[in-house]
Amino acid sequence: MGGDRGPRCIVPAALRSLSLYPSLHITLVGAADIVEPLLSDAVVASDRLSFRPAREQILADDPPASVLRGKRDASMRVALELVRDGQVDGCLSAGNTGALMVLARAVLGTLEGIRRPAIMAALPVSGRLCHVLDLGANVDCPAEQLVEFAIMGAAAAAELSGNPAPRVGLLNIGSETHKGNRQVRQAAALLQVCPAINYVGSVEGDGLFRGEADVVVCDGFVGNVLLKASEGVAGYLQAELRSAVADSWLLRWLAPLVLDVTRRTRERHDPARYNGASLLGLRGVVMKSHGSADEEAILAAIGHTFKACQARLPERIAGRVRECGAVL
Amino acid sequence: MGGDRGPRCIVPAALRSLSLYPSLHITLVGAADIVEPLLSDAVVASDRLSFRPAREQILADDPPASVLRGKRDASMRVALELVRDGQVDGCLSAGNTGALMVLARAVLGTLEGIRRPAIMAALPVSGRLCHVLDLGANVDCPAEQLVEFAIMGAAAAAELSGNPAPRVGLLNIGSETHKGNRQVRQAAALLQVCPAINYVGSVEGDGLFRGEADVVVCDGFVGNVLLKASEGVAGYLQAELRSAVADSWLLRWLAPLVLDVTRRTRERHDPARYNGASLLGLRGVVMKSHGSADEEAILAAIGHTFKACQARLPERIAGRVRECGAVL
Repeated sequence: MGGDRGPRCIVPAALRSLSLYPSLHITLVGAADIVEPLLSDAVVASDRLSFRPAREQILADDPPASVLRGKRDASMRVALELVRDGQVDGCLSAGNTGALMVLARAVLGTLEGIRRPAIMAALPVSGRLCHVLDLGANVDCPAEQLVEFAIMGAAAAAELSGNPAPRVGLLNIGSETHKGNRQVRQAAALLQVCPAINYVGSVEGDGLFRGEADVVVCDGFVGNVLLKASEGVAGYLQAELRSAVADSWLLRWLAPLVLDVTRRTRERHDPARYNGASLLGLRGVVMKSHGSADEEAILAAIGHTFKACQARLPERIAGRVRECGAVL
Repeated sequence: MGGDRGPRCIVPAALRSLSLYPSLHITLVGAADIVEPLLSDAVVASDRLSFRPAREQILADDPPASVLRGKRDASMRVALELVRDGQVDGCLSAGNTGALMVLARAVLGTLEGIRRPAIMAALPVSGRLCHVLDLGANVDCPAEQLVEFAIMGAAAAAELSGNPAPRVGLLNIGSETHKGNRQVRQAAALLQVCPAINYVGSVEGDGLFRGEADVVVCDGFVGNVLLKASEGVAGYLQAELRSAVADSWLLRWLAPLVLDVTRRTRERHDPARYNGASLLGLRGVVMKSHGSADEEAILAAIGHTFKACQARLPERIAGRVRECGAVL
C-alpha cells in the first residue's frame, strides 16, 4: 500500500468498501507492522478480507527501470503477481505511476495486438464522463498506437458506461482533415475505416469540455499536459474566486457559504478528484489511484477497480482488438 | 478589417485608441462602402488616421494555401504590404489565422535564423503574465525549432514586460531529465547551454498556472490543446458554478451579484479574453486578434500592437537570435 497517506487511509477505505459491495473480496498487500494493528479481530476473521505481508516498497523517486531488477518483495510487485497467478482479479495502487506501468508490463504482459499499455481516466464533463487516454505512459506515439488507444478506450468506455457505441474522437487542433500533426492525420485515416469504432472525428481542447465525445484519444505527452493544465486552471480559478469574494463587501460575510458552493463545484469537476486511472492493454485489471488520495478518493478508486473486474475489462479489450485486427 | 464583428466594432475601437495613445497613427484597411460611412468628417481630417480601401477580403474558410495565389487586393494582404513598404510599423488582424500566417511569411519574410514564425499569447496567471508559444502555427517541431521559440519568446517577453531576464521553461510532463518526448529532451539539452536565455527547466501543465515561468515553450499542437482546454475548463466551471448557485436557496436571490463577481474573475483570467497574439519571427510586427473580439478586446489588441511597434520587437528578436547563434 503506497500513496502519500499509506495504509492508515487505505485500510479504512477497504473496510468501508466491503460494506458497500457485498460480493467484493479484498487482499491487502503491505508492511505487516503497519497494516496488522489497523485490522480488528472481527476483520481478520472475515473471509472477504485477507492480508499478504510484503517486506519492501517502491518509493516515489525509485526510477521505473530500477524496480524491475531489485525489490522482489515490494508490495506493488506482490499485488501484481497475485493478479498474474489468478488469486485476485485486479490490482489498485496509489504508488509510483512509472514503476506501476513498468512492473505491470513485466509481470502481467500486454494483450495480443497491443504494443504498450495506456493510462485512461474519466473526466466529468457536461453531466457525463469523457474517457481520455493516454495520460502520460506513452510519448512519441505513431498513428497505429493512437488507433490502439482508440480501440482500448472504446471497449473500456462501453463496459464502464453501458453505452455500446461510445463516440470516439481524436484530440486535434482543428476539425479539417489537413489539421493536426502527422501521427494524428494518419490515425484519423485509419479510424475512419474501422467499423468496430464509433469514430466522430477531431475534438479540440475546448470541445472535450463541451462533451463532444465519450472517448478522446491523444499521445501521452499531450494528454498529460491537458490533464495537468485543466487541474491548474481549476485550482487557479478557485483561488481567484476566493479573492474576488473577499473583495466584495456584500459577499464577504457570505464567504463561507459562497466558497462552500464553489468548492463543491470544483471538487465535483476537478479531474484530480475523479480518482482511479485504468492501465489498459494488460492481461489483468490494474488501476492507479492519485498519490494524494484521501479515504473518500480511495473508496472511489476501489469501486472503479471492482467494476473493471466485474466487467472483465481485459477480455473485452482483447475481443475488440481482434475485431479491429484488419485496421492494425 | 475582418473578425466576426468587422469594421463596426474595429473602427470605434481604433478611434478610441487614438485618444488613449497620443503618438499612435492608424491606417484602416477595408471595404470603402462599409468603412467610410463610419468615419466622421472630423476623423477624416485627422492626420493620425488614414484609410486605405481594399476591394477583397480573406474569408474564415479560405484555405491558407489558396490565399497566396488569389485575392491580391484583400485587406489582409494590403495591410501586410504597408508594413513591408515601411508605411506602417505593424499590422493587426482579426481574420483567418492560417491565412495571416501564410501571407505574413510570404509578404514580410522571416528573420535571419528563424525557420518559421510562431504564435505567442500572454496568459494572466498568478498576478503576472505567462507568455506561451507556439499556439498552433507549427506542429511536428524538431528540437531546434523549440529553441527558436524560446529565443523569440525570451526577447519578446523582455521587451513587453520590462524584465530583462524572463524565466523560460519547456512545457513537459515531469521535471526529471528523462521525462518528455524526444524533441523536448533534445531542446532541453540545447537550452541548458544557451547563455542568452534564463532557462529554468521543465514546466508542467499545472506549473504554468502557478506562475513557474514567464515564457513557456511547446510545439503548436500541444500549445493549441493547452490554450483551448484552458478556455474549455474555465467556461465549463463558470456554467457549473451558475447551476450550483441556482441550487443554493440562500444564494439564489443573490445570484446576480455572485455571478457578476465570478464573471469578472473568469473574464479577467480566461485566456480567450486576453486579446492579441503575436506572430513572432517575421520582418515586421504582426498581431492577431481573436475573431470574436468585441470593441474592448480590439482596443486591447491595438494597445499590444502599438507596444510591440514601439519596442521594435522584430529587431530585438533578431538581435537575440544573433546572440544565440552558436546554439542553433
